[in-house]
Amino acid sequence: MRNIVISLAFDGRKYHGWQRQNNAVTVQETLEATVGIIMGEYCLVHGCSRTDAGVHANCFVASFKTNCSIPVSRIPIALNSRLPCDITVFSAKEENENFHARFSCVGKEYVYKILNTPYRDPFLQGLCLHYPHTFDIKRAEEGARYLVGEHDFAAFMAQGSPVSSTVRKINYLKIDKQNDLITLRIHGNGFLYNMVRIITGTLLYVSEGKIEPYTVSEIIDSKERAKAGPTVIPCGLYLNRVDY
Amino acid sequence: MRNIVISLAFDGRKYHGWQRQNNAVTVQETLEATVGIIMGEYCLVHGCSRTDAGVHANCFVASFKTNCSIPVSRIPIALNSRLPCDITVFSAKEENENFHARFSCVGKEYVYKILNTPYRDPFLQGLCLHYPHTFDIKRAEEGARYLVGEHDFAAFMAQGSPVSSTVRKINYLKIDKQNDLITLRIHGNGFLYNMVRIITGTLLYVSEGKIEPYTVSEIIDSKERAKAGPTVIPCGLYLNRVDY
Repeated sequence: MRNIVISLAFDGRKYHGWQRQNNAVTVQETLEATVGIIMGEYCLVHGCSRTDAGVHANCFVASFKTNCSIPVSRIPIALNSRLPCDITVFSAKEENENFHARFSCVGKEYVYKILNTPYRDPFLQGLCLHYPHTFDIKRAEEGARYLVGEHDFAAFMAQGSPVSSTVRKINYLKIDKQNDLITLRIHGNGFLYNMVRIITGTLLYVSEGKIEPYTVSEIIDSKERAKAGPTVIPCGLYLNRVDY
Repeated sequence: MRNIVISLAFDGRKYHGWQRQNNAVTVQETLEATVGIIMGEYCLVHGCSRTDAGVHANCFVASFKTNCSIPVSRIPIALNSRLPCDITVFSAKEENENFHARFSCVGKEYVYKILNTPYRDPFLQGLCLHYPHTFDIKRAEEGARYLVGEHDFAAFMAQGSPVSSTVRKINYLKIDKQNDLITLRIHGNGFLYNMVRIITGTLLYVSEGKIEPYTVSEIIDSKERAKAGPTVIPCGLYLNRVDY
């Protein structure tokens, strides 16, 4: 069987995340339905990551096995002709049979978008966090520095998440402000449940003076979720790149 | 009575244009309902322009008269607290009693956004025209030059529009391409019904070679709608600035 790997972007506003669920529309089931029509057979589609309801993807990788002989160059056009407008497949290739969208992944980059204006933007509803307060980028960057590297991020994980290890490595965490848009760009070898959103909430608390920058190091060491900042809303989060 | 002038932005995707209609939700009625609640009395809200269903505004000006004594600085916050998220009021001021959002207007700038990529962007559905073909900016600019100035734009108006004169003056028409986004920026003393959309459709035909650039001049002289290009979809159109 051929192992097809596709890259897609999706606007997560109407979806309850990637993973198939009872009684809620998800990206996985929407994509599987279309893949099934185009390939002429049921194909289980594996995603590179679970995503929460309302989270977006500029680049999400998925793979499926099929007997269909459609040329890879035709796959994006064929899938897009049937997919809803808020999901776009922009590339496809064939990989060896061992490639798995989730287990072969060695790194991911997430982006969190914050609109820093007094009034909300009618065109960005559900696409960013609206934050009308003063943002102190220097304080936030100072706090961010403590998060880079390999740490036990237990304090930055939603409580009760079932994982064997809470150690992860963050390769970079860049904060940028262009006009009114603040962007946090974070790359790591893996992320715990809600980790990027809790890190963002913590750095906003650092900016606001509710947490001192050097305290971020103590929060990591404490491994206590309650010491970190709040989990910011999902709609500012974008999976931006997946490395294999 | 006080004459209050507000500036607002709206995402037109869910609205059947500005003007009140039977059996369709419009920006005017939505705004009037909120203004009525905040001012504590019914206020007729005048807009600077009619807009078509699906057309957006980065800056739209509206005015209403009221006996309410609310300070102007509080008006945007008060209105935004009750308005749906796709309409944002970002400024308010008091004008003399003769000011009228529509009749006092001396110029307007519209922007038309075109996404020039092979695949559609899931985040820009309903916010631009998706145009996957090659765009020849030099040809389009050459054609655009004939439109600048005072002309009879009868050929660039939806047929059957009831107006006394079809003469308008275009002060500038700039075409820009930044990465994958083509922007037409057009400023004039007034616009006929569908004029910006027909101009855009005509310049796309010029880019495609279906119309020669110099033929634009002949189309103007013909005053025949059938000679110009198609009316492009409304969702790429944004009212961008209003001059008084």
